[in-house]
Amino acid sequence: MRLDDLETPAMIIDVDVMEDNLRRMAAYSGRHGIALRPHIKTHKMPRLARRQLDLGAHGITVAKLGEAEVMSEAGLEDLMLAYPPIGEAKARRLRAVLERARVSVSLDSEEAVATTGRAADGARIPVFVEIDLGARRCGVPPGPEAVRLARLIEATPGLDFEGLMFYPGHVHPDFDGNNNTLENLVDELQRLLELFAAEKFPVPRISGGSTPSAPYCHLIPGLDEMRPGTYIFNDRNTLEWKSCTEKQCAASLLVTVISNAVPGRVIVDGGSKTFSSDPLGPGTRKGHGLVRGYPEMILFFMNEEHGFLELPPGVRLKVGQRLRVIPNHICGAVNLHDVVFPYRGQEVLGEWTIEARGRIR
Amino acid sequence: MRLDDLETPAMIIDVDVMEDNLRRMAAYSGRHGIALRPHIKTHKMPRLARRQLDLGAHGITVAKLGEAEVMSEAGLEDLMLAYPPIGEAKARRLRAVLERARVSVSLDSEEAVATTGRAADGARIPVFVEIDLGARRCGVPPGPEAVRLARLIEATPGLDFEGLMFYPGHVHPDFDGNNNTLENLVDELQRLLELFAAEKFPVPRISGGSTPSAPYCHLIPGLDEMRPGTYIFNDRNTLEWKSCTEKQCAASLLVTVISNAVPGRVIVDGGSKTFSSDPLGPGTRKGHGLVRGYPEMILFFMNEEHGFLELPPGVRLKVGQRLRVIPNHICGAVNLHDVVFPYRGQEVLGEWTIEARGRIR
Repeated sequence: MRLDDLETPAMIIDVDVMEDNLRRMAAYSGRHGIALRPHIKTHKMPRLARRQLDLGAHGITVAKLGEAEVMSEAGLEDLMLAYPPIGEAKARRLRAVLERARVSVSLDSEEAVATTGRAADGARIPVFVEIDLGARRCGVPPGPEAVRLARLIEATPGLDFEGLMFYPGHVHPDFDGNNNTLENLVDELQRLLELFAAEKFPVPRISGGSTPSAPYCHLIPGLDEMRPGTYIFNDRNTLEWKSCTEKQCAASLLVTVISNAVPGRVIVDGGSKTFSSDPLGPGTRKGHGLVRGYPEMILFFMNEEHGFLELPPGVRLKVGQRLRVIPNHICGAVNLHDVVFPYRGQEVLGEWTIEARGRIR
Repeated sequence: MRLDDLETPAMIIDVDVMEDNLRRMAAYSGRHGIALRPHIKTHKMPRLARRQLDLGAHGITVAKLGEAEVMSEAGLEDLMLAYPPIGEAKARRLRAVLERARVSVSLDSEEAVATTGRAADGARIPVFVEIDLGARRCGVPPGPEAVRLARLIEATPGLDFEGLMFYPGHVHPDFDGNNNTLENLVDELQRLLELFAAEKFPVPRISGGSTPSAPYCHLIPGLDEMRPGTYIFNDRNTLEWKSCTEKQCAASLLVTVISNAVPGRVIVDGGSKTFSSDPLGPGTRKGHGLVRGYPEMILFFMNEEHGFLELPPGVRLKVGQRLRVIPNHICGAVNLHDVVFPYRGQEVLGEWTIEARGRIR
């Protein structure tokens, strides 16, 4: 089948670009001796997790237990649950996953320590203390509270303190200039490690790293592991952060113009149920995607099934014409699709089911 | 099972509120003699479409052929495809649905007439001309172009001109005062009907109506049919438009606080994959949802699995505590879930599969 024969809207994946993205990150990881543990939240497919392992990743990262279940059932054996499990149901499900896979857990509260301890139930679980180094999402402050939580982990039957984990979501390529987020992060991490040393409390591992911060991981002293996700496909956000080029964007939404009746605009058959409404993070450019070949054409509004494209002066599009659009945020977009279509050139190579789509619990 | 036993995040539906919403719209429809053809894009479940028919709806509306397939396979027999079909694959699928159900089609281009004509293939398809009465999405201008398209439909074997269809997405309860969108709509429709009359071209039916415009449908002379969707559940948008009260919001997202480690905020276990990132349309209030019982608490940011709640002064939330949040846009939120949980009081009544979720093609 050729791309022209695919029904739209459809998410299409350029497999050569994807492979190149995977190899480039693996090479960086190898060059700097920082273990790669990709977050599967972006692709949500065991087959691509296995490809990441084939290229040198030493395990994968998941957020929700539903993702851990899908991945471990597909034979993935080394997972980090980068999300605090809370409550009896999560303990029960984590215990079941532990029968199939090694699972480390990152957490930031006594409640999550208790849940993880109940999950261990005779097994041993490596546990990271999540610290907040500026992203202000999860994570205890990098001070005595982190040591206290590490001690609680060590004191809990079945749990081993595995080290410190952080999410550097606030660190981007433009960190230099007036943006000193990376320097602050390194300083805070260093002071915390001194505190652990003063307490004679060993910190076995340090895990960090997102896609935009990936090129700077080697500048973080002591970092053992990085967990980027988006790099496998890239998107308009990573493009705007200058974390990739347009040619390194592996995923597009293939859409069809279904109406040009209203002057000055056309409507395509993908809207918020195809692209997601996730906003463009950086920069001042608006809209919901980058139209390949038409950089000036703005996808300025969406309903669920309607994408509104503003036509630049002199541009006309016919009903039935197809466009490829790079979404703002590929992780949210993949989550809306049941399948993606890998392709090379004009040839569609098959259909990949997104097994962990929608595993939000 | 009780609500307290449900794993989070989960979408929960208050069945009594839903039933009341359905009855209220059906009563309005009956009182004014305007046929009700609800859009199933909101709930995406045949069981709820059937309930709408039981209460007096005379058919349903769908957007994509995938929705038409799910609904017709479940025994729904009278559909409007409120979306122009374009291309051979859509013609083939529409033809298959026609074997199970009456399907009317709304469209606004010669290309869509051609596709629909190919789909007819011996059957007869009632076709509406979609006109743009101000929403500026799909629809030809309300002038000679509409008459021309109606003539083309009549001239196409298998197709019957069924009338005029419009989407009044720009008409809201605050239309009075400085907002004259409804008056303009009525004027433009009236002039177009005069044009059809001057051409001696009968217009059998006129179909319009969204949830926010629903209370004003009887003020549109000649309107035969209304197609609201959101009213079954309502959401923060319809609340802000004053189309409903908070008590009439039937759907909430049940979420759990999973971190309170960063001062001034807590993180809940639902983010953009639970709520969707759909923005709040009207008003000046920001955020991604209304936290029931905490009107001052802002869900100010989301990652895929993290909802960031800003704590008002003096409010503290424990890890493990549960909250119910009304999403900005219920249609986009439902599309993210595989199931919803109907409940009455504290009792969970079962689990409803969202059969037409993700049917974007």
